[in-house]
Amino acid sequence: MSPKITTELLKQLRQVMKSPKYVQEPVQAYIVPSGDAHQSEYIAPCDCRRAFISGFDGSAGTAIVTEQHAAMWTDGRYFLQAAHQMDNNWTLMKMGLKDTPTQEDWLVSVLPEGSKVGVDPFIIPADQWKRMSKALRSAGHDLVPVKENLIDTIWTDCPQRPCKPLITLDLSYTGVSWRDKIVALRSKMAERKVLWFVVTALDEVAWLFNLRGSDVEYNPVFFAYAVIGMNTIRLFIDGDRMMDPVVREHLQLDSSLEPEFKIQVMPYGSILSELQAVGTGLSPKEKVWLSDKASYALTEAVPKAYQYLTPYTPICIAKAVKNASETEGMRRAHIKDAVALCELFNWLEKEVPKGTVTEIIAADKAEEFRSQQKDFVELSFATISSTGPNGAIIHYKPVPETNRTLSVNEIYLLDSGAQYKDGTTDVTRTMHFGTPSAYEKECFTYVLKGHIAVSAAIFPNGTKGHLLDSFARSALWDCGLDYLHGTGHGVGSFLNVHEGPCGISYKTFADEPLEAGMIVSDEPGYYEDGSFGIRIENVVLVIPAETKYNFKNRGSLTFEPLTLVPIQTKMIDVNLLTQKECDWVNNYHQKCREVIGAELERQGRHEALRWLIRETEPLARVQ
Amino acid sequence: MSPKITTELLKQLRQVMKSPKYVQEPVQAYIVPSGDAHQSEYIAPCDCRRAFISGFDGSAGTAIVTEQHAAMWTDGRYFLQAAHQMDNNWTLMKMGLKDTPTQEDWLVSVLPEGSKVGVDPFIIPADQWKRMSKALRSAGHDLVPVKENLIDTIWTDCPQRPCKPLITLDLSYTGVSWRDKIVALRSKMAERKVLWFVVTALDEVAWLFNLRGSDVEYNPVFFAYAVIGMNTIRLFIDGDRMMDPVVREHLQLDSSLEPEFKIQVMPYGSILSELQAVGTGLSPKEKVWLSDKASYALTEAVPKAYQYLTPYTPICIAKAVKNASETEGMRRAHIKDAVALCELFNWLEKEVPKGTVTEIIAADKAEEFRSQQKDFVELSFATISSTGPNGAIIHYKPVPETNRTLSVNEIYLLDSGAQYKDGTTDVTRTMHFGTPSAYEKECFTYVLKGHIAVSAAIFPNGTKGHLLDSFARSALWDCGLDYLHGTGHGVGSFLNVHEGPCGISYKTFADEPLEAGMIVSDEPGYYEDGSFGIRIENVVLVIPAETKYNFKNRGSLTFEPLTLVPIQTKMIDVNLLTQKECDWVNNYHQKCREVIGAELERQGRHEALRWLIRETEPLARVQ
Repeated sequence: MSPKITTELLKQLRQVMKSPKYVQEPVQAYIVPSGDAHQSEYIAPCDCRRAFISGFDGSAGTAIVTEQHAAMWTDGRYFLQAAHQMDNNWTLMKMGLKDTPTQEDWLVSVLPEGSKVGVDPFIIPADQWKRMSKALRSAGHDLVPVKENLIDTIWTDCPQRPCKPLITLDLSYTGVSWRDKIVALRSKMAERKVLWFVVTALDEVAWLFNLRGSDVEYNPVFFAYAVIGMNTIRLFIDGDRMMDPVVREHLQLDSSLEPEFKIQVMPYGSILSELQAVGTGLSPKEKVWLSDKASYALTEAVPKAYQYLTPYTPICIAKAVKNASETEGMRRAHIKDAVALCELFNWLEKEVPKGTVTEIIAADKAEEFRSQQKDFVELSFATISSTGPNGAIIHYKPVPETNRTLSVNEIYLLDSGAQYKDGTTDVTRTMHFGTPSAYEKECFTYVLKGHIAVSAAIFPNGTKGHLLDSFARSALWDCGLDYLHGTGHGVGSFLNVHEGPCGISYKTFADEPLEAGMIVSDEPGYYEDGSFGIRIENVVLVIPAETKYNFKNRGSLTFEPLTLVPIQTKMIDVNLLTQKECDWVNNYHQKCREVIGAELERQGRHEALRWLIRETEPLARVQ
Repeated sequence: MSPKITTELLKQLRQVMKSPKYVQEPVQAYIVPSGDAHQSEYIAPCDCRRAFISGFDGSAGTAIVTEQHAAMWTDGRYFLQAAHQMDNNWTLMKMGLKDTPTQEDWLVSVLPEGSKVGVDPFIIPADQWKRMSKALRSAGHDLVPVKENLIDTIWTDCPQRPCKPLITLDLSYTGVSWRDKIVALRSKMAERKVLWFVVTALDEVAWLFNLRGSDVEYNPVFFAYAVIGMNTIRLFIDGDRMMDPVVREHLQLDSSLEPEFKIQVMPYGSILSELQAVGTGLSPKEKVWLSDKASYALTEAVPKAYQYLTPYTPICIAKAVKNASETEGMRRAHIKDAVALCELFNWLEKEVPKGTVTEIIAADKAEEFRSQQKDFVELSFATISSTGPNGAIIHYKPVPETNRTLSVNEIYLLDSGAQYKDGTTDVTRTMHFGTPSAYEKECFTYVLKGHIAVSAAIFPNGTKGHLLDSFARSALWDCGLDYLHGTGHGVGSFLNVHEGPCGISYKTFADEPLEAGMIVSDEPGYYEDGSFGIRIENVVLVIPAETKYNFKNRGSLTFEPLTLVPIQTKMIDVNLLTQKECDWVNNYHQKCREVIGAELERQGRHEALRWLIRETEPLARVQ
């Protein structure tokens, strides 16, 4: 991976930062956030502005360019990748390390007095705008909205915004009709005494209308906004997508519906003016509900007095708690996904010793096996197929320049998943196709202990996920080890593989309490720069737990793994496991054997079935 | 404990809430926070306004009185106590329970449109003012400062503000002179480019000047403020306390010091006008540093553009990391404290079966034994001496109406501590003087497992205490049990028994990372309303930990118990302990025996020594 040469681009950007054509007054700094106008994590090619200007294309990062400097903030997952992809014009700001300045502090330290800092108001979330604006103001600088995106002005071959056909999902997948979702949303609005709700996140629009798209790779979403009133539904969406009779029927666009369920379809680009019109017509006490992560542009379209901002929207929270149809769909998707991985690992075991399998070939083979499964749509994120030192690059994606050949001498880490029409998967397994060293086994076993500690944890109703994060690290901490990423994220149901409002992280973001029906990942790891990476990830469902006592009648919760793929026992140092941990592994493998074994049998995949049986042999602890 | 009858008082308060003599416009609600003008947790009798108006005298709680309602917010430690102490005029708002409204939400739900909510601006911290003011404004109400405290206007027999003599501490106790503390503070100020620092917390004033007082029971502090400039030191303090030649010598008031170390002594009451004068004289970029918990009145004395607010002050953070002299002092104090408790428990074991020892007698006896120790000053908080159902009242203090007799049939919980000139102690032991039931032992053992899990935890440098909280709960959670309070708090060095900025709690307050030299408590518990309470508390010192590996060279930390008092083995169900936990208990008891045994021997306390030897017999696990 050679870095992108950005000298010329930065020169151009610095020119437009001073050009009266684009800015009222010159800006001394320009911020290029990661997201799009919907604050999406995964974005369409036309929105990859930060990657365009810097070369760094990880999923999280913020670039700031001043007249003298260019700096990139990203987190521990991407330190190595960003360092590889960026040239010497860029300074890497490692978030989470003690000495790394915040963006605000850094700006204050480098800017001349009374500077203007520009940003596209559609790309920056309102809460970030607020924080940054305040910090800059208190140091005598100004954060200013720059209407035209300055990157777009220098990006001559910027791709077009995608506008792909939609998929409709019927009740057997969603469990609840879009009408009933609107009814539930309006009742939440009534509870909070708000009259309007603005849906800005793409996965929230998709979930609300039981529609899916493919405008963004890996995320089955489409570019749209919605504004829900107590008696109106406005959907802002472009293209011929509303001409499709299946979509028209699904949304009942041509039926004689009660007026409050009649969907008004409007152009995508008209959201700002429509929202301004809504804002103008308000009387006191008539509030408009927005996520505090909605763009500054849309938030400011509503007069401050009428804004009702919350960190998580009622749609985000409702979407996180999967209903019975969704849970069953997720189970089915994970069974199919496990079948594909059993095929893959069986194939790898035979092929790797021949020295012909590269990271890319392995990733492609994983996709091939997945695509053979029913209702397969696409991958749910770029497959992380990494061997040896590449495994230490936490969100590595193999490209020809880095593509390494799998061997019997190195650890192989595969973090992959797919979108099926009935659910989204995300699973990581770490394998050795030869003989792992004692040290590799030791590290793997600490990671496994952490994985089990979370998966088997019992905790009271109302517990927030971040309170479970240390369970995943305790065994590593005991030996002075750790990993620089969170332990888990919410997973969508045939939606984004990362979703809020729950998660398991040492970062105390305002996560919502875990509830039965929520689905999160459990993925501790350990990484040695230049040597190897280990991660063990299951997607797990929050379920009620039976306990001996029941303090204050609160009830307890625990997790049930949805992912049912063997954990390589060859990598386990059994003597480091407690009896309980050993039992956990054996019970888990027993379940893999039963459930996935039956499906492999049904699909006539006998060789993979034999592999599964062998890989799920019980562990025996030496006393 | 019969509740305080508040009908007449509330009537009077509601009258002054409308009286033009005290308020410009009538206020429809009046907030009575817990603290004093220094946001102290423990307060002088003249500041116990919330207890005066409601009867509830726990250490945390906020009262709000409207024309129709009177409501009290407090946390899990005080649910039972508050319910007992308040009459039917009051509604108890149980903080931390899901359905309890916030003060803001409750006010919005009960107030008529366009209401005014009054509060004493000296008593409410600036950050609370800001949050509440914003929430009220967005609902069409106003938070207004009421200069005269309305409780004081109806509190006819309000006691005088105390003004007791000061104690000076020499270098052998403090390790660092006040001059060097000022130098260090000024260097922190220079780093942040602030010109003035306002010391508002009483323990921060005491720590900075190496002085102690006794204006507030249990907390060796005195009423004072300080304003530190780059070249000036102003100390705002009343009375004849500055006439004491020892104090004058200590502060070098009569020496020919360099001007930047010359202390200007000013009247306590002049802080507001002096601060306003400082604020008026500022030019742009000249900032004044205050805690964001300083009173709204003082914060507003500085124009907003010049305020530099942080959650923790540099004094708070420096004070938390104990130096070698302070650590040694804390060790000595804990040894003396353990001697006193060995005497007490030996005495209780003999006396309880006679049926003559009440909770109050036991508490008094504990104080008597402590007062026999060198450098004893006073207790560090009101002794919690509770037996049977009283043990479930988390911050119970025995009074004649509730005073229960200790017996061989009930669990006894003693949470107590003292101020010695060399350190502050805080220890809880839960004992049974007869035969505990299997269930009592089971619960005790889960609590012990939680205590050990925190005490023996190894974690990376930079870890915040709240990440350790779940370790203390895991064993309880596994059985569906829990406790409704945090796990630990910072402990001062001959200062407040509760201090910031570190702690161990599920509440994700902005705690600072744990550092070697910090001192916190480790005190999980379990409480059954109407039956019993269990808590096991040690004060522990953060120390570097040796680990097998050292990820990213970050280094690791762990805890060393300073408290060395036997944990009653009779209460332990050994079969519920792992071998590691069993070893921890045995090692801990071995250390108690060695260190406290030697001191008991030295003090000629042979009977207590025999008790210690017996109570520290090693546990044997049945395999």
